[in-house]
Amino acid sequence: MIYNEQAIAAFERRYRANFINSLGGFKSLVLIGTKNRDGSENLATFSSLFHLGADPALCGIILRPATDFSSTLDNILEQKWYTINHVSPEFVHEAHQCSAKYPKGVSEFEQVGLTPEYLENIPAPFVQESKIKFACSFVQKTAIELNGTTLTIGQIKTALVPDNCLKEDGYIDIEEAGTVTSSGLDSYHTTSRIERLPYAKP
Amino acid sequence: MIYNEQAIAAFERRYRANFINSLGGFKSLVLIGTKNRDGSENLATFSSLFHLGADPALCGIILRPATDFSSTLDNILEQKWYTINHVSPEFVHEAHQCSAKYPKGVSEFEQVGLTPEYLENIPAPFVQESKIKFACSFVQKTAIELNGTTLTIGQIKTALVPDNCLKEDGYIDIEEAGTVTSSGLDSYHTTSRIERLPYAKP
Repeated sequence: MIYNEQAIAAFERRYRANFINSLGGFKSLVLIGTKNRDGSENLATFSSLFHLGADPALCGIILRPATDFSSTLDNILEQKWYTINHVSPEFVHEAHQCSAKYPKGVSEFEQVGLTPEYLENIPAPFVQESKIKFACSFVQKTAIELNGTTLTIGQIKTALVPDNCLKEDGYIDIEEAGTVTSSGLDSYHTTSRIERLPYAKP
Repeated sequence: MIYNEQAIAAFERRYRANFINSLGGFKSLVLIGTKNRDGSENLATFSSLFHLGADPALCGIILRPATDFSSTLDNILEQKWYTINHVSPEFVHEAHQCSAKYPKGVSEFEQVGLTPEYLENIPAPFVQESKIKFACSFVQKTAIELNGTTLTIGQIKTALVPDNCLKEDGYIDIEEAGTVTSSGLDSYHTTSRIERLPYAKP
């Protein structure tokens, strides 16, 4: 079935949100951990993480407009650090629950039952339950005026990867680690490798 | 194992590319179809697609610096249109091969054996073999001066979705459609749903 611009515009608001969020394919599902200057911890579900470059090692996330319920951007700007944590099947419910609109100052770690964990010199909490995780330092933000979102770019500074998942060529077998992917706004999936393919040449 | 900034910087170039590209989790794997003003078709593998908003329906892609081998950005700017096509297991090899550096003017459709398909008023080729696909009109681009990449934002104008994959609430079951996800630079995966979860409330 073909849906043209008029058809998409006529969708009911939540229907359209489900439709458009599904269209983009499978997404990177991560929990982003931050802390404000008073030590209050925050953990938020994100599915907009994308790779920007390997040297320097950069990644981007899209942050929605700030609200009374969202402190991730404020915390990143205050502390200049954030952690990005993969989700395993064992805590998919907890990860999803981090998308609920808790008031600022309420720790999602406490509310959903995940465990904050710190590394020296990184003022942002990791998720102890995550098998693969990394810390980013804030590099820059760019306002996307079209819809009030903010592209935030970070440099990958420290990565935690289980030994058995790191392959000889630097590839991290995130499937072996159990990393979950998401689709739409609320669907969670494990994966099965088809194959790895050699570098493509004409 | 913990890899700090110095360790990551010391990785051999290709090792680091594999490592950093894996860290971000599973990715949206798509083929982007474009055409230049002379009618020359281009099809390129992308894994940086991300959701920007549902109303208006916007998505972003990151384009690497233009080279003699890459005409996607030039074509988007010429025609103001591009298509985004999901990949199925049956043509993962062909999709991967679209990442090879063919000279400008060479059609990846012909080289890899995928079929261009057109809809009226959309001057960019879809991939006939794709089950889920959509067309975007160019909205804006933003240079990311950090590493010479370009964030390109498009508005989703027309979507093709199989009837059996579209659920009552607008969610598109991309797993049922067989949509493939990728990890790292060269690994392809099918998915198995854990579950869909209800809207999270505090």
